[in-house]
Amino acid sequence: MDRTSFPHFLAITLRWKDNDVYGHVNNVEYYSFFDTVINDFLVRAGGLDIHRGEVIGLCVDSQCTFKESLEFPGTVDAGLRAGQLGNSSVRYEIGLFRDGSDQPAATGRFVHVFVAREDRRPVPIPDRIRQALEGITG
Amino acid sequence: MDRTSFPHFLAITLRWKDNDVYGHVNNVEYYSFFDTVINDFLVRAGGLDIHRGEVIGLCVDSQCTFKESLEFPGTVDAGLRAGQLGNSSVRYEIGLFRDGSDQPAATGRFVHVFVAREDRRPVPIPDRIRQALEGITG
Amino acid sequence: MDRTSFPHFLAITLRWKDNDVYGHVNNVEYYSFFDTVINDFLVRAGGLDIHRGEVIGLCVDSQCTFKESLEFPGTVDAGLRAGQLGNSSVRYEIGLFRDGSDQPAATGRFVHVFVAREDRRPVPIPDRIRQALEGITG
Amino acid sequence: MDRTSFPHFLAITLRWKDNDVYGHVNNVEYYSFFDTVINDFLVRAGGLDIHRGEVIGLCVDSQCTFKESLEFPGTVDAGLRAGQLGNSSVRYEIGLFRDGSDQPAATGRFVHVFVAREDRRPVPIPDRIRQALEGITG
Repeated sequence: MDRTSFPHFLAITLRWKDNDVYGHVNNVEYYSFFDTVINDFLVRAGGLDIHRGEVIGLCVDSQCTFKESLEFPGTVDAGLRAGQLGNSSVRYEIGLFRDGSDQPAATGRFVHVFVAREDRRPVPIPDRIRQALEGITG
Repeated sequence: MDRTSFPHFLAITLRWKDNDVYGHVNNVEYYSFFDTVINDFLVRAGGLDIHRGEVIGLCVDSQCTFKESLEFPGTVDAGLRAGQLGNSSVRYEIGLFRDGSDQPAATGRFVHVFVAREDRRPVPIPDRIRQALEGITG
Repeated sequence: MDRTSFPHFLAITLRWKDNDVYGHVNNVEYYSFFDTVINDFLVRAGGLDIHRGEVIGLCVDSQCTFKESLEFPGTVDAGLRAGQLGNSSVRYEIGLFRDGSDQPAATGRFVHVFVAREDRRPVPIPDRIRQALEGITG
Repeated sequence: MDRTSFPHFLAITLRWKDNDVYGHVNNVEYYSFFDTVINDFLVRAGGLDIHRGEVIGLCVDSQCTFKESLEFPGTVDAGLRAGQLGNSSVRYEIGLFRDGSDQPAATGRFVHVFVAREDRRPVPIPDRIRQALEGITG
């Protein structure tokens, strides 16, 4: 997996407090980068309305393999691809790249189930979101 | 898996900003609960010196399955068990329980490789930490 | 100011990632402790409904003086007092205490204006919240 | 105060979990933007070595006035000016601007005291950092 594996990217500014006692970005923050590239894409490309939309995406599973450290100050490039695309759920694949590096510092997955905001039961992926996701199945 | 699956617990106070736009604790924070119960245990039971110790634990892999939501205000009980215990690495298993619930809201794994602080190369798990981990292999 | 200055307390578990590169709890997190003791109080004692209530509290000003460091692992005791209580707004005073210490590691203020959730315009403090706040004017 | 009040800027990507239950960036995160524009500047322009340098900057006071909300997805432009510059300490002034807006969504201050990493006692501001700060006294 390198940068060409991912059809969509978002550059995310690192923050001072991302670094932990060991001087590198804490493992927990990697999942925040996953969350951020995904939801930024869903809002901008898929028209997800996080405030009032009837359908929302809930995370039911995520995983990350850590290969190299990241470090503030700097930027991380988060690459996104839609892997398995089901009726109500999608499995994203994510790669995190240091500025200027072609090999990922981390790779992982993140599974969203789309549910009705009110009763939190699974619903089909809304058309516009599905179309956006089909555009990044790479 | 229920509470009896975990030999060690830490109660963690939820914080206002753990809740995200959808009104429940954000998926990212679950990994912070993993990180917290593990390092609290390593420091208190295993004598890990996070400031000056020659050996530190780095996360190389983690995973979480989300079953039920958590919500501020309240407390989450993080249960910890040492699964596979190798020469330099340990795979922890974690369960997160709502106050009063016997079924986990989430379960996951977290793999630490112990490395030398300076060159970040793998080293054997220090004796005192190994003993502590053996005490929670459940 | 010591512990007796604060009529209400909440113990908050520190988390691994609260510690920053310099080995102590990052200054930003202190404000999260402010936010947490305040909203926990408003929900439990004042009946604030953070999900569906018509009135919500917005922070318009906050300040913190840092005196001593805090450090994971451990617990911080957040003390709360309602200072100035106006028609729509309240100024809280907060003290953060290390476990076992009578002198605050930090003190600060936090001003909430209560507004209508929909149009975000100021409204009178709801009765039940006002009564709760009057109980901690110390 | 508008954008012309600040000689230095850093664009910071907002993250999904910056938004809280009320749908806007949580007040706590504003201080993380302060921290980030300041330390990014100290590292890049002032040569601060956050890992091994003998001198580090500790926050002793901060304050923020919140005027308008910020919201994920998007970017916040953090403007920085060095206000009062003493022997060991500096008071920064910060303005946070929404993309495309000339009026700040928030303004605040942040006071650093430079101390020796080992004993945490105040020391004169290192020359290179002082020169960098003098360049943004606006």
